[in-house]
Amino acid sequence: MENKTIGSFLYDCLSNEGITDIFGVPGDYNFSLLNALEEYGSIKFVNCCNELNAGYAADAYARVKGISALITTFGVGELSTCNAIAGSYCESVPVIHIIGGPKTAVQQEHKQMHHTLLNGDFEVFKNLYGFISQYTAKITPENAAVEIPTAIAAAKESKKPVYLLIASDIVNKPVVQRDVNISKKQTSQPSLQAAVQHISSTMDQSQNPVLLSGIHVSRYNLQARVQQLAEKINLPVATMMMGKGSFDERHKNFIGLYAGSLGNTQVQNIVETSDCVLAVGTNWSDYNTGIFTARINPVKLIDIQPNKVSVGMTVYENVLIQDILSELPGRINKQMPSIPQVNFSYENDYPYMEEPVTARYYYPRIQKMLRENDILVADAGSFQFGSALFKLPRGATYITQGGWGSIGYGTPATFGACMADKNRRVILFVGDGSNQMTVQEFSSMLVNKCKPIIFLVNNSEYTIEKYLNAAPKPAPYNNIASWDYAKLLEAFGGDFFSAKVHTNKELDAAIKQAETLCSQKLCLIELFAPQMDAPEIVHKMKSVVEQMAKQM
Amino acid sequence: MENKTIGSFLYDCLSNEGITDIFGVPGDYNFSLLNALEEYGSIKFVNCCNELNAGYAADAYARVKGISALITTFGVGELSTCNAIAGSYCESVPVIHIIGGPKTAVQQEHKQMHHTLLNGDFEVFKNLYGFISQYTAKITPENAAVEIPTAIAAAKESKKPVYLLIASDIVNKPVVQRDVNISKKQTSQPSLQAAVQHISSTMDQSQNPVLLSGIHVSRYNLQARVQQLAEKINLPVATMMMGKGSFDERHKNFIGLYAGSLGNTQVQNIVETSDCVLAVGTNWSDYNTGIFTARINPVKLIDIQPNKVSVGMTVYENVLIQDILSELPGRINKQMPSIPQVNFSYENDYPYMEEPVTARYYYPRIQKMLRENDILVADAGSFQFGSALFKLPRGATYITQGGWGSIGYGTPATFGACMADKNRRVILFVGDGSNQMTVQEFSSMLVNKCKPIIFLVNNSEYTIEKYLNAAPKPAPYNNIASWDYAKLLEAFGGDFFSAKVHTNKELDAAIKQAETLCSQKLCLIELFAPQMDAPEIVHKMKSVVEQMAKQM
Repeated sequence: MENKTIGSFLYDCLSNEGITDIFGVPGDYNFSLLNALEEYGSIKFVNCCNELNAGYAADAYARVKGISALITTFGVGELSTCNAIAGSYCESVPVIHIIGGPKTAVQQEHKQMHHTLLNGDFEVFKNLYGFISQYTAKITPENAAVEIPTAIAAAKESKKPVYLLIASDIVNKPVVQRDVNISKKQTSQPSLQAAVQHISSTMDQSQNPVLLSGIHVSRYNLQARVQQLAEKINLPVATMMMGKGSFDERHKNFIGLYAGSLGNTQVQNIVETSDCVLAVGTNWSDYNTGIFTARINPVKLIDIQPNKVSVGMTVYENVLIQDILSELPGRINKQMPSIPQVNFSYENDYPYMEEPVTARYYYPRIQKMLRENDILVADAGSFQFGSALFKLPRGATYITQGGWGSIGYGTPATFGACMADKNRRVILFVGDGSNQMTVQEFSSMLVNKCKPIIFLVNNSEYTIEKYLNAAPKPAPYNNIASWDYAKLLEAFGGDFFSAKVHTNKELDAAIKQAETLCSQKLCLIELFAPQMDAPEIVHKMKSVVEQMAKQM
Repeated sequence: MENKTIGSFLYDCLSNEGITDIFGVPGDYNFSLLNALEEYGSIKFVNCCNELNAGYAADAYARVKGISALITTFGVGELSTCNAIAGSYCESVPVIHIIGGPKTAVQQEHKQMHHTLLNGDFEVFKNLYGFISQYTAKITPENAAVEIPTAIAAAKESKKPVYLLIASDIVNKPVVQRDVNISKKQTSQPSLQAAVQHISSTMDQSQNPVLLSGIHVSRYNLQARVQQLAEKINLPVATMMMGKGSFDERHKNFIGLYAGSLGNTQVQNIVETSDCVLAVGTNWSDYNTGIFTARINPVKLIDIQPNKVSVGMTVYENVLIQDILSELPGRINKQMPSIPQVNFSYENDYPYMEEPVTARYYYPRIQKMLRENDILVADAGSFQFGSALFKLPRGATYITQGGWGSIGYGTPATFGACMADKNRRVILFVGDGSNQMTVQEFSSMLVNKCKPIIFLVNNSEYTIEKYLNAAPKPAPYNNIASWDYAKLLEAFGGDFFSAKVHTNKELDAAIKQAETLCSQKLCLIELFAPQMDAPEIVHKMKSVVEQMAKQM
């Protein structure tokens, strides 16, 4: 660390985590950070059109590469991205958020600077971010050697965003060397052994166990371990929406999406009649449980969370998910004879090619075009639910905000995913309402020569909101402006392919073209589906919402 | 209040303040608020494309009408608008921010709901907003009768945003009646009398007093009082950037902008050699003081703030600005014989019509087209500084974020200003970098048939950032994508006039056309000015920034 500046030390730390791109927006307080980054060389700064979008892009980048970083400017910049960072917090995505702040002297003198509340308080935004970050620190030359690695370690351990405020004048100052000893959470061995013993005997006695694979399996990169466990016991495996992609959906043990009564009825039946549900890294939020329609008897549930395990009503604290998953495959003797057969949602073609394009056709058709290692991004809205039922190809990554559910996430997330891996195909599913929130990042994709395939439903409404609204009459506020999205891409400039699709036949043709052209350019397919067209799962959701409205 | 629901009580309170439009974005947790608003009838809900933009629009609406309201949804919606609300806090703009939250029962049971952090905490965003709001409250049927009026009163008294969280299930529940007694800040009469006496005798003894009119003169609607005072003493009056528009710039006493050494040298000289500077409602932030180049001897300064008065080193607490301004005109006998003559910046035409369009031409040309009662919106960036030197017509309103300085504010603010008064002409000055951040609101303007005249400098860079960056070599991160803004408007749909202007002559022609057409449609004038073209004040700023960089 000798003679290292804070800037180069920071970028070394990020580089060690595999970060090769940092998203953000320039602003005068972060110029010294950006200038140092330019000089550093091996990490690229990726401009977004605004900070919310940059935060979303960084979130998706982390979902693909494991971790990401974001640079914003003090006050105005950092506060624009609150929603994205809270989303990363909610959905357990480690984002290193770096804020360029006013000079140290100016802060010490409590000067009334632009981008402050003009009250001399330079800590207020760090305090505000304390609510939505795992760790916050104000970096100084004296604490940098400790605080920067500590923050990064906290992000990696918790899978949550962290916040580093760096005054613009210290970026080029040398880091004061220190002995750094970062404490790590450790598994309690007695707890682990007791939990393993308990799980093993429970599993042995069970007749029809099933495995639910959840969000933390992907976050802690434990897919191989879960697969090993499933194969050892020969367990049927369902994923929950937020855990989609955490288990190979082409694997013989995969039975589909479990989403209470919103998903596949066969899967629901298997899970809810099981006498031993081994839930690995799942969460139990409203959308993830089919709006609380999931009915799993807690006595029959083994619930492996990042830091603890529950077996029925018994809780084992301080057991890390990676440690128990290492232990389990060798410690369970149970072997199931067979995997129940289930039907998947989009296996059957809808052959009426001259009809107006609707969900009945386009989900099966898109299912067919999916390839190994594709990255699928579904924005909040009806697509999020509909595409949760895709049977993903091997190696595919599924990105959606199943918990936070912020509409507008998808477009910048697609940009982030494209930047995270230029060799993988990225496919976005987005509604026009969502897209309008964050449409600028189409421009960033064009500037950076990203080549996603974008399916955009152009129906001048927030469809999902209309479904979720139990009001007796249609709400005019859920209508949105009609835009011409292909013309928008023209206005942004750059090379792209676009198609406006009104019938199933046109969609088929457009997909074929996009499959060829997506190696060269961004492809936009606008689906002019009728208003209120939505897949079956959204109709089911509406019934559930209406039921609930009656109960309240 | 008998039998009133919380929804109709809330809207009655807002209606009493003159609010006829509420900005926002729908989301499932605010449907009951929006449905109640539909039913209420006399307040219109105005959709924006995202919540940051809605927050900016609400901010500008309040600058025109005195107060405004904003409805967002829990978590995702409210956090998207943090930057706008912090801006309103910084710049003393009262915005009533209303958040539709999850149902009461769901909150009480700490359920893991979408748009939460999935940790059962439903207070976290209210707590977060505590840092950037004057007042926050979670409304219940029992406290609504007190909390809603208290919050609105706090916003009006402090001129700051306030936060009201309303669970979706209580909107249609009746308000529990209560006696409401809202305490108001009161002026201390002894303090007031002492301050008035001190000011009067100081003024009597002064040789060359001058008045500085600041931001709070507009915020507390005290323009007439300040004018009365200026006329009584026959004081020369300068405004500071954030106070621009608080004094009639066609008044014989007006001498121009005071911005330390960044503004007019004659004005600087008059202010800084004055033996009695009467500053009314100003603030002393970096941009407002010409980056701290203002040199006013504190011993010679009378500083009237919203709640206190300083006369030299003596402070009189608990004196409200409106009370002391009522008192002063009748209590000062001093009369100055004449107002010093000054030159204004944009009085002289630049006659080289065939030249490429630059600031040298367009500032005087635009100055000439300004009309009484125009609303001018300048986004942060070089326009903010350049247009601070316009000599405004009578009745004009000048809107900019001179303190918070968030780029991207201008476009949604223009939308908000248009909605606040459909009879006034609104003119926006914006750079392409700023516009790209929040461009969606062009669409909202078209949907709502707003007819601003928009001057957009299209030069593919953040010009102001390049000026503020003291780095030795040009920073590539301050370049932005080249868009075709007229085509963008086409893509958004709707009727508009646009012109692409490369020479001074073309600008002259485009302005003439826009002056006619702006009664019918939105007018966009794209200025293809050379990169780094900027008015003189920005060049001065660069020197100051470079000087400062050397000193640190």
